[in-house]
Order: sequence, then C-alpha cells, then structure tokens
Amino acid sequence: MSPVAHVSKGLDDVTVGRSKIAWVGGETGDLVLRGFDIRGLVPGLPYESVVHLLLFGDPPAVDPSPEVVTALRTYRPVPPAIEHLVDAIPAGLPPLEALRTILSALGDGTYGYPPTLEEGFRLIARTPVLLARFVRRSKGERPVGPREDLGHAANVLWMLTGADPQPKKVAALEGYLDLLADHGMNASTFALRVAISTQSDLISAATAALGTLKGPVHGGAPSRVSEMLNAIGSPDRAEAWISERLARREVLYGFGHRAYKTEDPRAVVLHEIARQVADPNRLRLAEGVERAALRALRETRPNARLYTNVEYYSAVVLEAVGLPPELFTPTFAVARTAGWAAHALEQAADNRLIRPDVEYIGPAKGRQWPRELPGR
Amino acid sequence: MSPVAHVSKGLDDVTVGRSKIAWVGGETGDLVLRGFDIRGLVPGLPYESVVHLLLFGDPPAVDPSPEVVTALRTYRPVPPAIEHLVDAIPAGLPPLEALRTILSALGDGTYGYPPTLEEGFRLIARTPVLLARFVRRSKGERPVGPREDLGHAANVLWMLTGADPQPKKVAALEGYLDLLADHGMNASTFALRVAISTQSDLISAATAALGTLKGPVHGGAPSRVSEMLNAIGSPDRAEAWISERLARREVLYGFGHRAYKTEDPRAVVLHEIARQVADPNRLRLAEGVERAALRALRETRPNARLYTNVEYYSAVVLEAVGLPPELFTPTFAVARTAGWAAHALEQAADNRLIRPDVEYIGPAKGRQWPRELPGR
Repeated sequence: MSPVAHVSKGLDDVTVGRSKIAWVGGETGDLVLRGFDIRGLVPGLPYESVVHLLLFGDPPAVDPSPEVVTALRTYRPVPPAIEHLVDAIPAGLPPLEALRTILSALGDGTYGYPPTLEEGFRLIARTPVLLARFVRRSKGERPVGPREDLGHAANVLWMLTGADPQPKKVAALEGYLDLLADHGMNASTFALRVAISTQSDLISAATAALGTLKGPVHGGAPSRVSEMLNAIGSPDRAEAWISERLARREVLYGFGHRAYKTEDPRAVVLHEIARQVADPNRLRLAEGVERAALRALRETRPNARLYTNVEYYSAVVLEAVGLPPELFTPTFAVARTAGWAAHALEQAADNRLIRPDVEYIGPAKGRQWPRELPGR
Repeated sequence: MSPVAHVSKGLDDVTVGRSKIAWVGGETGDLVLRGFDIRGLVPGLPYESVVHLLLFGDPPAVDPSPEVVTALRTYRPVPPAIEHLVDAIPAGLPPLEALRTILSALGDGTYGYPPTLEEGFRLIARTPVLLARFVRRSKGERPVGPREDLGHAANVLWMLTGADPQPKKVAALEGYLDLLADHGMNASTFALRVAISTQSDLISAATAALGTLKGPVHGGAPSRVSEMLNAIGSPDRAEAWISERLARREVLYGFGHRAYKTEDPRAVVLHEIARQVADPNRLRLAEGVERAALRALRETRPNARLYTNVEYYSAVVLEAVGLPPELFTPTFAVARTAGWAAHALEQAADNRLIRPDVEYIGPAKGRQWPRELPGR
C-alpha cells in the first residue's frame, strides 16, 4: 500500500506496444496506414483494397483486392440462427445500442483463439448486413440482402436504404469508410487489444471495442454535429450561436482531438468529399459554422490548438449520402471493423496479458466488520 | 516516427489510476475490499453486504444490507422485450458466449452517462436471472423466476437448478460470490474502465468486461481444472500425469497468477469452503493433485513462485454446489458484476479518456500505391 511515484490516468504518456498498422502523427497531421499516407489513397481507393492493406500489410495485385472481394462476398450471407437473434432486438432501440448486441450475436461459438484472417473477413462482411437488417426492420421495412454485383461500400448503402445506390454517393461513402478504417491505438482498438490479451476471441473483442466506441468522447458524437448545424440553421447566425454556447462553457462538437494538434488529415479529405457530394446550402452552412467556430475557439482558448476533427465533415458527408444521424457512429463502426480485425491479429501474434496496476487509496487494511458473521 | 524509450506491452509497470475499492497485495497474499481483509469476511458475509460495501464504501447497518436486498428484489424481474431477445439466443451456445449477448441485451436504451447506482443494481440483479433463463431453456427446461423469499446466492442456485437450494450449498456459493466480487484492476475491470472513459454506458462497459473475462488467461479456464481432475481420476495417478504434461511443456490449470507471488487468499478460503461442501473423494483428489502439482512446479520452475490460484478450488466448490463446468466462468461474471458496477461509478466520478500510445514500427511514410486510383 505504498504510494506510487507516477500515476497516468489517461495513459497519455504510456506506450503500450509496437504496431505495424498505422501511424498517427499528431503534430504533423499525418495518418499513415502500412506506410501509405491516407491523403494519397482517398478518395479513390476501394474499401476492399484498404481492408487488404490493413490485413495483409501490402497493396493487392489489382484494385479492388480480388481476395477481399471474394471473401466478403462469401461471408455476407448470415446463418439464419444469427438473423433470428438479431430480429429479436427490440425495434426502435438506438442503432448503436443494437449494434453492440449484433456484434455479440455474430459469436456463434466458432470464433476461437488465436483469431484468424477468415474470422476477420466474417466480421467485416456481416456487420453491415445485420446492422441494415435491424435498421430496416426497425422502420417496418423488409430487409434487403447483399448484392453480388456491388462492392462493399455500395452494398452498405443498398442494404441500408433499399435504393439503387448513386455512384457519387457510393464514392463518398467509400472515401468515408477508407478514412475511418483504422486509426492506430485509439480507445476502442485498445479495448479490443485488452480483450484479445486474455486470449479471448475476435467477436468478444469487437464487442468490447464497440462498447468503447459508443462513448461520445470517442465515436458517439458525430450526430451532434448535425444537430448543431440544424440548430444554427444559417451561416449568418453562426457567430452569435457559438459565442452564446462558449459563454455557457458548453462544448462545440466537431473540434479538437486528443492526438491531433494540427489539422486532422481525415477532416481535410472529408471536407473535399463533402464538396463533391453535399447539398450546396448545407456545405455553405457547415463551412460558415466551421470558420466561426475556429475563430471563436482561438480567441477563447488561444493555447489549446483546436482544429476541425474527423467528426465534423463526417456528419456532412454521411448526411449527403443519405444516412440519418443515428447511423453515423454505427457506420463508423462498420468502417472500423477492418482495423479491429487487423489489430486483433497483430495482438495475438505476439500476445501478453494487458493488466495495469492501480494505486489503492482507500481505507487501510484492518477494518473490522461491525457485527459477528454467521457461521464463523 | 521516432523510437520510443520504453514500451510496456503488458502495462505491468504502469499505474493507471487511483482506486478506493480493492487492494491486491501480490507479495503478501492480501485482498482488501474498502479496508476489510477478505479472509475476515468470508465465509459468512451475505453477498448483498459485499455489494453494499463495494458500492457504498462502508458496511451496511445490518446484514444482509436492507438497501441492497430491496434493490435486487426490485430489479430482478426483467422487461419482456429483453426476455424475448434472450430467448432468441441459439440453444446449445456455450453459456459464456450467450452471456455476452445477455449483458448487451440488458441495454434497453435507458443506461446513460454517468452510470448510476440504480443501473448498477439492475446489472447485478438481472445478470443471473437471464443467464439462468438461457441455461434452462437451452436444456429444454422451463425457466424458473426469482423468488422473493431468497437472497441473491440462493436465488442464483434456485434459478439455475430449479431445485430448492440446500443451505450448505447456498453458503458455499455465497462465499464464492463474495470472494470473486472484486479484485481491483484486473483485465476485465480495466476494459470496463476504458469503455467508461469514453463516457460510454454501464452495459456497454460490462459487455466489454465480459468479452475480456472470457479469455482463458483471465476468467475462462476454471472448467479446465475440472477436466484435469477428471482426466487424472485418482490421487495416486497425479504425479505421473503431471510430469508427463510438464514434459510436453503444457500448462497446468489452476496454478500461478500475474499478481500473486504467494498464496492467493481467495484460494485459501475456497479450499476451506471446499472442505465443507465437496464430496470427500473429489476433495481428496483435488488436494492430492494440488500437492503433486506444486511439488512438480517447484522442481521444474524453482524461481517462478507459482501457487494455487483462485480457479483451482473455485472449480471444486462450484462442482460441489451442483454447477457444470461450462457455468464456472459465467458464475464468476455473476459475482463480478458488483465490482464492475463499483469501478464504473468510480471511473465516472473522476473521468479521463484512457488512450495509450503505440510505437509505429511499420514501413516508413512515403510508399506509393502501385497503380493510379480512379477519380483522382
């Protein structure tokens, strides 16, 4: 019970391991996947090729990766017992809450330790199929199954909306999925690696990751960006709305990131994508609010180095492809299943139980229970 | 991308925070809950009073804690929509796999941030109700609901077995639940705190914890102790069986613990409980195997300081109360919901995002995709 020299509550200053998957350059504004600058890949790269890069470490021989295309096509059909379980999730439950049960439901007793590539493909393939199934049933609509003629991004859009996906929207969603596919050791990926470190299985670990992604500090807030834009309504009202909000010491959603102390490269690319796909009025509003917010934040917190984060233009892009705000974080998770699979495989390849210490600061040993206990 | 001075893969040497809940004295063989030595409380203390101690920080006014008795009685009945979802879990799924979906299913959209005491009681109360419901339905038996005249441990036994619980078995299970109710910052509790650190909810965090507990390195191996005892069969065969196994460099289940470098106090108390409740032949076998195993381990790994861990006599005690091996880890989780609730409340009371760094050792930035990408 001796005092501890150094306690690191957020583990900010702790390096938990080595990874070959992603480098996040917080000072330079870099996101590098397996050596590739994300800005050189997106938009344009099929999601299947990002999955290939993350899981195999190198680019595929052609785009989209034929191995990944085939694997995802093979595993998209879901066994009826899992569909039956997912169909019992109460309609009307928030999709993000439902998605936690969906991921857990994927665990049909066949996922073991160590995790396998094939299990990774199953996770990536089936997550959007079941999410879409829940979403459509929840609205009283018939689920539409995956289509063999569509790639992953197009299938996601098709299954969620039930409409023939427009190429411009598919390209935008594909860019979003690429950009969100991995981000190194964030909190949800860390939770996944903690689970794998006990030799648990990929589905348990992905469920742990989703439970962690759900928190608004991590993945659970992009819908609030849409709400904020709706509340402001027009660019000329931005300045007043933002000052009021900051005066009440409330948070502005979509700005600031634990890792990035400069522009988040994903935000930059998502802004480009938004320019391609968003309704011009909505884009003008988002850009006006962004300018006003950055100006106000730099006045009120000049040392905080706050920039537009990935959530901000994620909201604008996902709105533009036709997704409602309650699907923003679930779609983030759909993208991130690729990174989760890659990190699970990497963790298992050189595994060690992750179990930090804690400093006990409660009452000293030696308290006596105030009463006799029976049977002693 | 500069090299990192110190990488801590298992976070063994890292202190992630301060806690008033439990002190694990790995060198001295201590487990202290809120200042109380666990050996002074068990057997004898009702589980409801341990829950009270963990959640409120002090002993209740009388035993069992009237507040906790009332809260658990109030929350045991489960809303029909959640029962319906749990009933859709495929029969025959391993109960530990089912329990992950059960915990997730508890999240009906009413669990928020920060977590509340009342949410903690709901988690503790409902986990065994739904586990038992699944187990009985899985065997083709009618679920039996909770009884108002029984305490928590007795209800667990009643709901799982459908038989009037014998006082000796209830006392043994109660001791087990008390001993396993919390153990400071183990891997599953850490995963729970990582989830809460993003401002996620108690159910998401408990699901993350269960996904982590599931791994055999953490909570998923006590059933293997039973399998080992069955395989050995009689005490005189222990020595030969164990030497063969160690010669093949295979693990002996039930020995060694990351934290304890001396006797695990829980193992000591569980051995006492086993003496009260276990079949004499099974007890003699377990004790014989334990002696032979410790002797062999000390010869082959003299510096490893390996002792009997909590799993070993957990298996003997849980067998004796009538539970099959596939329910050992789920019952561990039933006990641990109390600790999870306490840690979630503590984490939220002084929260910070837990997000360690990782050293990137993949290819340097600057790789070029081998082909032109469309639309660029």
